[in-house]
Amino acid sequence: MTGKPEPPTFGPEFSAAFRDLVLWRRDVRRFEARPLPDGLVERLVALACHAPSVGNSQPWRFVHVEDPSRRAAVRASFQRANREALDGYDGEARALYAQLKLEGLDLAPVQLAVFADEVTERGAGLGRQTMPETLRYSVVGAIHTLWLAARAEGVGVGWVSILEPDVVTAALDVPDSWTFIAYLCLGWPVEEHLDPELERAGWQARADSAGFVLRR
Amino acid sequence: MTGKPEPPTFGPEFSAAFRDLVLWRRDVRRFEARPLPDGLVERLVALACHAPSVGNSQPWRFVHVEDPSRRAAVRASFQRANREALDGYDGEARALYAQLKLEGLDLAPVQLAVFADEVTERGAGLGRQTMPETLRYSVVGAIHTLWLAARAEGVGVGWVSILEPDVVTAALDVPDSWTFIAYLCLGWPVEEHLDPELERAGWQARADSAGFVLRR
Repeated sequence: MTGKPEPPTFGPEFSAAFRDLVLWRRDVRRFEARPLPDGLVERLVALACHAPSVGNSQPWRFVHVEDPSRRAAVRASFQRANREALDGYDGEARALYAQLKLEGLDLAPVQLAVFADEVTERGAGLGRQTMPETLRYSVVGAIHTLWLAARAEGVGVGWVSILEPDVVTAALDVPDSWTFIAYLCLGWPVEEHLDPELERAGWQARADSAGFVLRR
Repeated sequence: MTGKPEPPTFGPEFSAAFRDLVLWRRDVRRFEARPLPDGLVERLVALACHAPSVGNSQPWRFVHVEDPSRRAAVRASFQRANREALDGYDGEARALYAQLKLEGLDLAPVQLAVFADEVTERGAGLGRQTMPETLRYSVVGAIHTLWLAARAEGVGVGWVSILEPDVVTAALDVPDSWTFIAYLCLGWPVEEHLDPELERAGWQARADSAGFVLRR
């Protein structure tokens, strides 16, 4: 008499709180130094593994980056990539870019590199013959799940993309067949905001969603 | 005296409900024919536009596919791609694949094609010099936001990836500089499940998350 589990009903209060979660999720770059509680990251990763994946391929691979020399290699990669990015801007944009805080690699107590296993046999290729990139997109869904779940518990996540993928992959000694998707900094944020950091800093404002919709 | 908005506190009850939401989100392929309420999809899209995006570039572009001949072109693309995919399997896998229900293009009352605008000036390229693919990843975050918000309201979403991106892009008459990311079917689901359709059908089971984690 176990029966099937009853589907949950979420209701308007949950939807309103979920909306707040989406609106208050931020890309966090300023972290307190104190550690996260034991087991918290493992719970977040376990939930992230329930994200949708093409053909149920579950291609996400999470690497806890703990070794100081590996962390230093990632930071050095950021510094190179960021210097080069700065050189691509002129005038006011260059001055503004130089002032932006774009990562929290100095203090984030937990750092996760996230990869897509391009040669996983799970899913047997279903759903990705014409769009193999959906394997990588599946990993993004897992990252986004982790991000929202973390924010719900007051934990900040920052996604660092100003990195050299080959350098990070080599520094972490993972299989060549894994594609680097994201480097995540996790920790307690020192501040909470409703507006994105890049909006607050005057880099790029939000636009109205109506402008992103067409009818055909 | 407007002041800054107070950050919300979500609490353990919300986190538990959010976990249920992630666990009960499904890729839905069986829809009731009845329409969704007016304004619901617009609200979902508006919330999706609060997803994280690289450099705050907001590269997501949503196309409501309403014209029957355009919908037919998308279905024809699915049928070609699916036939070709079937031909890639042999024996038992082929027999099983042939029985799978992989899309809801026949009945889904709302169909959204989602693209990434590769030439958007928003964000001024920030964060994507070394990883231009993060523009497309940002669109995936928006899709995933929409998916969860829809499920919270009882609305099912199915992501169809067995499609020819060039054909879909041409059929919908959108700029060539847009990359096709996903075709979403939305509607009221005829059933709700805790286990993924592909697990239930015996194609691919879920694996334990511990096997997806390394330490370095």
